[in-house]
Amino acid sequence: MTAKKLPVLAPGVLDALLDRFNRVRALTDGLCASLSDAEATVQSMPDASPAKWHLAHSTWFFETFVLRDHVSGYKPFDASYAYLFNSYYEAEGERLARASRGLLIRPSLENVYAYRQYVDAHIRDAWGSLPQRARELIELGCHHEEQHQELILMDLQHLTYSSPLQAPLFVRTPTQPVVVPSPLRWVVGREGPAEMGDDAKGFAFDSERPRHTTWLSPHALADRLVTNREWRQFIEDGGYQQSKYWLSDGWAWVRSQQIEAPLYWRRDEEDRWVQRFGLDGWADLVLDAPVTNVSYYEADAYARWAGARLPTEAEWESAAQHHNAQAGVFLDKAGAVHPMPDHGGQGIRQLFGDVWEWTASAFSPYPGFQPATGAVGEYNGKFMSGQFVLKGGSFATPRGHVRASYRNFFYPQQRWQFAGVRLARSQ
Amino acid sequence: MTAKKLPVLAPGVLDALLDRFNRVRALTDGLCASLSDAEATVQSMPDASPAKWHLAHSTWFFETFVLRDHVSGYKPFDASYAYLFNSYYEAEGERLARASRGLLIRPSLENVYAYRQYVDAHIRDAWGSLPQRARELIELGCHHEEQHQELILMDLQHLTYSSPLQAPLFVRTPTQPVVVPSPLRWVVGREGPAEMGDDAKGFAFDSERPRHTTWLSPHALADRLVTNREWRQFIEDGGYQQSKYWLSDGWAWVRSQQIEAPLYWRRDEEDRWVQRFGLDGWADLVLDAPVTNVSYYEADAYARWAGARLPTEAEWESAAQHHNAQAGVFLDKAGAVHPMPDHGGQGIRQLFGDVWEWTASAFSPYPGFQPATGAVGEYNGKFMSGQFVLKGGSFATPRGHVRASYRNFFYPQQRWQFAGVRLARSQ
Amino acid sequence: MTAKKLPVLAPGVLDALLDRFNRVRALTDGLCASLSDAEATVQSMPDASPAKWHLAHSTWFFETFVLRDHVSGYKPFDASYAYLFNSYYEAEGERLARASRGLLIRPSLENVYAYRQYVDAHIRDAWGSLPQRARELIELGCHHEEQHQELILMDLQHLTYSSPLQAPLFVRTPTQPVVVPSPLRWVVGREGPAEMGDDAKGFAFDSERPRHTTWLSPHALADRLVTNREWRQFIEDGGYQQSKYWLSDGWAWVRSQQIEAPLYWRRDEEDRWVQRFGLDGWADLVLDAPVTNVSYYEADAYARWAGARLPTEAEWESAAQHHNAQAGVFLDKAGAVHPMPDHGGQGIRQLFGDVWEWTASAFSPYPGFQPATGAVGEYNGKFMSGQFVLKGGSFATPRGHVRASYRNFFYPQQRWQFAGVRLARSQ
Amino acid sequence: MTAKKLPVLAPGVLDALLDRFNRVRALTDGLCASLSDAEATVQSMPDASPAKWHLAHSTWFFETFVLRDHVSGYKPFDASYAYLFNSYYEAEGERLARASRGLLIRPSLENVYAYRQYVDAHIRDAWGSLPQRARELIELGCHHEEQHQELILMDLQHLTYSSPLQAPLFVRTPTQPVVVPSPLRWVVGREGPAEMGDDAKGFAFDSERPRHTTWLSPHALADRLVTNREWRQFIEDGGYQQSKYWLSDGWAWVRSQQIEAPLYWRRDEEDRWVQRFGLDGWADLVLDAPVTNVSYYEADAYARWAGARLPTEAEWESAAQHHNAQAGVFLDKAGAVHPMPDHGGQGIRQLFGDVWEWTASAFSPYPGFQPATGAVGEYNGKFMSGQFVLKGGSFATPRGHVRASYRNFFYPQQRWQFAGVRLARSQ
Repeated sequence: MTAKKLPVLAPGVLDALLDRFNRVRALTDGLCASLSDAEATVQSMPDASPAKWHLAHSTWFFETFVLRDHVSGYKPFDASYAYLFNSYYEAEGERLARASRGLLIRPSLENVYAYRQYVDAHIRDAWGSLPQRARELIELGCHHEEQHQELILMDLQHLTYSSPLQAPLFVRTPTQPVVVPSPLRWVVGREGPAEMGDDAKGFAFDSERPRHTTWLSPHALADRLVTNREWRQFIEDGGYQQSKYWLSDGWAWVRSQQIEAPLYWRRDEEDRWVQRFGLDGWADLVLDAPVTNVSYYEADAYARWAGARLPTEAEWESAAQHHNAQAGVFLDKAGAVHPMPDHGGQGIRQLFGDVWEWTASAFSPYPGFQPATGAVGEYNGKFMSGQFVLKGGSFATPRGHVRASYRNFFYPQQRWQFAGVRLARSQ
Repeated sequence: MTAKKLPVLAPGVLDALLDRFNRVRALTDGLCASLSDAEATVQSMPDASPAKWHLAHSTWFFETFVLRDHVSGYKPFDASYAYLFNSYYEAEGERLARASRGLLIRPSLENVYAYRQYVDAHIRDAWGSLPQRARELIELGCHHEEQHQELILMDLQHLTYSSPLQAPLFVRTPTQPVVVPSPLRWVVGREGPAEMGDDAKGFAFDSERPRHTTWLSPHALADRLVTNREWRQFIEDGGYQQSKYWLSDGWAWVRSQQIEAPLYWRRDEEDRWVQRFGLDGWADLVLDAPVTNVSYYEADAYARWAGARLPTEAEWESAAQHHNAQAGVFLDKAGAVHPMPDHGGQGIRQLFGDVWEWTASAFSPYPGFQPATGAVGEYNGKFMSGQFVLKGGSFATPRGHVRASYRNFFYPQQRWQFAGVRLARSQ
Repeated sequence: MTAKKLPVLAPGVLDALLDRFNRVRALTDGLCASLSDAEATVQSMPDASPAKWHLAHSTWFFETFVLRDHVSGYKPFDASYAYLFNSYYEAEGERLARASRGLLIRPSLENVYAYRQYVDAHIRDAWGSLPQRARELIELGCHHEEQHQELILMDLQHLTYSSPLQAPLFVRTPTQPVVVPSPLRWVVGREGPAEMGDDAKGFAFDSERPRHTTWLSPHALADRLVTNREWRQFIEDGGYQQSKYWLSDGWAWVRSQQIEAPLYWRRDEEDRWVQRFGLDGWADLVLDAPVTNVSYYEADAYARWAGARLPTEAEWESAAQHHNAQAGVFLDKAGAVHPMPDHGGQGIRQLFGDVWEWTASAFSPYPGFQPATGAVGEYNGKFMSGQFVLKGGSFATPRGHVRASYRNFFYPQQRWQFAGVRLARSQ
Repeated sequence: MTAKKLPVLAPGVLDALLDRFNRVRALTDGLCASLSDAEATVQSMPDASPAKWHLAHSTWFFETFVLRDHVSGYKPFDASYAYLFNSYYEAEGERLARASRGLLIRPSLENVYAYRQYVDAHIRDAWGSLPQRARELIELGCHHEEQHQELILMDLQHLTYSSPLQAPLFVRTPTQPVVVPSPLRWVVGREGPAEMGDDAKGFAFDSERPRHTTWLSPHALADRLVTNREWRQFIEDGGYQQSKYWLSDGWAWVRSQQIEAPLYWRRDEEDRWVQRFGLDGWADLVLDAPVTNVSYYEADAYARWAGARLPTEAEWESAAQHHNAQAGVFLDKAGAVHPMPDHGGQGIRQLFGDVWEWTASAFSPYPGFQPATGAVGEYNGKFMSGQFVLKGGSFATPRGHVRASYRNFFYPQQRWQFAGVRLARSQ
């Protein structure tokens, strides 16, 4: 598996984008380094994809939008891959149905690594002569691949949890330090007109644009995330058994799916919720770590039980705009990652990293929204119905990937993503 | 069926609310006057309810929240009705599953009319001594029953369309006058901070409150609704066959359900869409009437095809606030009702009545939203996920029922409600 | 509802077939006499049909195969009925899907009675000049309608049970006499070659032909049917909880459908199965009456629990050939009907009437089987996969309808038919 | 992959059963020798199992019923395997759900081979001291594993066909010789009483017992199997489009699944069925080879179209009893296997090997059937509802596995097994 060894280049040769490209590609390889072909191939549910597919699809993106479109004479690695590894770009033609990604017994994992090397080599070879549009697409491709890095972790955790032996993929990380939990405090937010959306200081997806004015009503946000300890109180107080806390669709979901706790939790013999399955297997719940793997329905029900509500996207973004989006618990290298307890302090904490924060805002276009042109324009806009915005990134998001204006989105019943809860209230 | 004959009371006896109560109850009876027991009992799909159920449920509302709670010594008409005719009020206990409403072979339609008379008589008997809270609940009950009047028409249209013989329930109304279609013009809306929500000039549902500030970006609205003629151009241009116009969920819906045109349309032998099924049966499409019975997915795709978008709720409400909400094509009496062509003129037209207008806004709580207290508090808040707001009422909405702040809501795939499209664009 | 009054004819005018036709038609009307239009229209599950449909379909059979095909100049009552009331005769063209029979809000029940009268009158008018083939089809039509008489009772029992109020359609019949239960005794059957199938002494369906030789291995049959009392022992012994008694498909069915007792049984507050829902509503279980409304899976599991097995069709028919097929508990007139306790005696009892008896034999063609010619040839042959044969008729079968060679058939999970169990064993 | 190298033993050490055990185990290994871990792990549909599971399950059988039960002090290879690799033996406790066998990312394929070696070594070590019951179970285990050898080929063919790249697992075998097709001739069978079932000359499954008398009506069987050439005439004659040829359940299946040809067939650009996917990939149809991979519904429809019917099990077995069950086209070694054209000749041919032959007989117990005792008694009896018997083995059945009394069984819609058609008729 020498695929992950990049050639050593003289530092001067590398510009910042190439360096970024190299690091992104290497981290993806690293996340999958321990996988057998079988572990990289099986699909545990229609929402999840096999690691093999992620490895190839993120490569297909560079091959298609950079090499095919901007490097004359480029010869595709394999003509069938355009069909196999397109995700949902209708403009790019027919593609393998999402629920059939688990049938990719071929190409082998080894072939997929060869594909990655081939494309990487061609990108690097062509580097000096790439037009500006191609470099923009490489930047987009890096951000795109970072999204798939988090998806790889989400999907592998789900796969190992679903597999009969539940063998962890990563070795156990050291025990997390005990911290004294801090009481939740309310931090009043600003009121009146407020700007939100891409501030044009760096890369942003089309859905973050244009920057525009919104209006903030009087409100306050919790200074930290909801913890596992608090969530267990919600459970013990019958939160999952009382319809009054739940949206109508959420209540139907809880009952039909027999939901009783966050995904990946389990009980001991005395029926107390005590453990959580992570990328390194079963471990005791860290009670002061933020709760994760809860659906919007659960987040919303918890907030109602707590006499609060979820923040709107504008409220969250207003609070986060002046925080450092690169500080926090993020993914820095391959290995098991976990949400970590808050260490207390003044003001709002845990905004970036830790866990994605459900907002009460539907994922909708901003005023004057224009999708990107070309096939990459299918990236965000066509998902703007039925989903809710999540903000801030998680412990499994590559550091540097998110910003205050970043908009993640999931359906309200989904919960294999690393999503948690920050409370808000109207003043 | 003498149930619908109200006793003649001296005018002085009636206060405005009692008069309103009497008229609302009489219109509901009138809408169902031609139904056989079978036609009032069959359920054509899980989303729809039998007329018998609507007749009884709207009565149950008054019996439960007014008579049971505020009239001492009231004896329920039938103890089983609390179970049979509760819709979704969890706080009121167990209830008949929605999809089983079509199994209500008993009580007979005749018994249901007797139930209506019994409750009406008790309300009137108690009238002089009702506390203020009861009168408020009667007002709420009247608005509630008006909603069910429109549902009765929606559900009966769907039932007769779904039944093998498609026999119309209402006699054909006279042919609509031919009008010269007016070209669509854009009317620029206001920009900057704007108030929206209940203006406290009359009754409003909890979801319309509180009135609050929002911010309007530069935009314009179409001066009239999209017509059947225009929609047919969308069809003929391949609108239903090209993924690029559709949201991802919408495209999956179009393909799995094989959607090719609005609900209730049919083709002639030359494959041209020429007829529509209404409450009075099949009739030629009135080409300049507003299109109706389209889903959010279709409305959104049409707007994209037309190079425009759907209005936000705030944009629509801002435009509508100074229009007369009681003028327009509304339901005034029992009988077949239809959308009518626009007669042209200056400024924005067809805002109230005609057809419900899909907005791009998800149905979400307003800042500071508080559900009403008690079981009636389940009225709106618990539906705040996954649905979109519609504004303005339709030809099947009782006149006087809607206002600028009124928020109707449906799932994006639903289309048996009388929903159409007004275009908008960002400036 | 004067539809059910037949004109009085001079006895000499009636030949035996016309007399039979009149009596069959009148009994069908009688079974439905108490139904409202709603009760005759609603469909409680895809397997069941509304009474309105049975009333019309049995009439359509005479109209199509007798009047249309053999009476020149016959004008159909209504051109749409050929589509509405064909059941499954592919050769007769398109037809209403079975699961949509519950959408027949029109024609009204009154129209359906008028249809019956119209067809009956035309049959009688043409009587003297009908060709022999038409008379044969009338005989077939009478047998066909008798089958629908039992289906009407099955379907109405299911409908009233499924409806929220569970209001019975027939008045309670007098309490059944207490009998001393007789112990089950084994009666040895004959061994070696045996004839089975239509003995050509009267009417028979194509599936009963040709008469042919089969070979009987040493065996014995129980002298009476399994009773409710015995079935309750099976339940109390954990019969529904132990996989060892069940076929693999049956065990999957029991678990997925959470089956714990025969259809129509319910428990008291001490969790003891004590009541059964019949055509006259809920009543205490008659413990010595034969169990009914059990599936093949349950019958087979019971037999295994009892250390026995189900009889083969040949074993049953061999035993029954010399019994009087018209004696026993059958349907004689409209009203509530029930299985009755065995009164004891010598030899095999309860073979005809009481409850249908599940056999271990799949419904397969006899050697040399030829379907009837024409559309009526679709009557039986095309159902010869996946179903099991039942023999002997039930308390809801019209007296005179069955014979030893009669073959009824249902899928192994179906149990709304009146089916019970006779045990057998190999010697 | 040295797992498949068995130690060389002196010939005198081996008794016949041990020799058989060694050969069976080695053939299974050989069939899977080319598989990657991914190819051995993915499950292409709920009916099929991954090769990894077959490899381990056939081993679990020996470990459980021989080593655990009859070798004192045996230590299981891995305690979790009893759960993972039990198939359907309820008496053996909880087990992995069939549809979840595709989640077996662990144990790795390498571990599964180690498991096989471990169990094989323990069997061989214990050989001299095994009690007679254990040797019987080893014989049963060999027959059981032979069944799984055919299942492995069925499942791998389905997996590679379902996978996006359809890469064959075995290399192309030489082109089959052209033969002159022989016209189908009818061979009259015997009539009157006939013996069938296990003749006690060797191993048999419980479902083949007891030998018993049945009665044969006058009939004839086709002297050879239906060919691809003939099946194509059925297609071209509209066989899949005309309800009159089909059982009712079959017609519903054809329409809902849009079946137009046998599984694994495809059309050329002129819409003519010309190719078939085999274990070695796509190849031109061998027109005179027997058709395979057809369902019971298709077989039955074809027979009706051809003016014939399917044979009963007794008719088939009577004809086959005096043929050599080891001659014919069978599986002899690992590699691609195919049905081969008939070479003509006198009398009935192709009875054994080639393709399984659907019979018209439901899979039912023989008179006096007793399941084997213990958990292995779940082997056959519990599948005796809803399935049809197939006789004679196929090109993928290990040579020596079948005999005249052998009863295979599948549901009427299943067709991934190698099943074809022999016609029969009543005289």
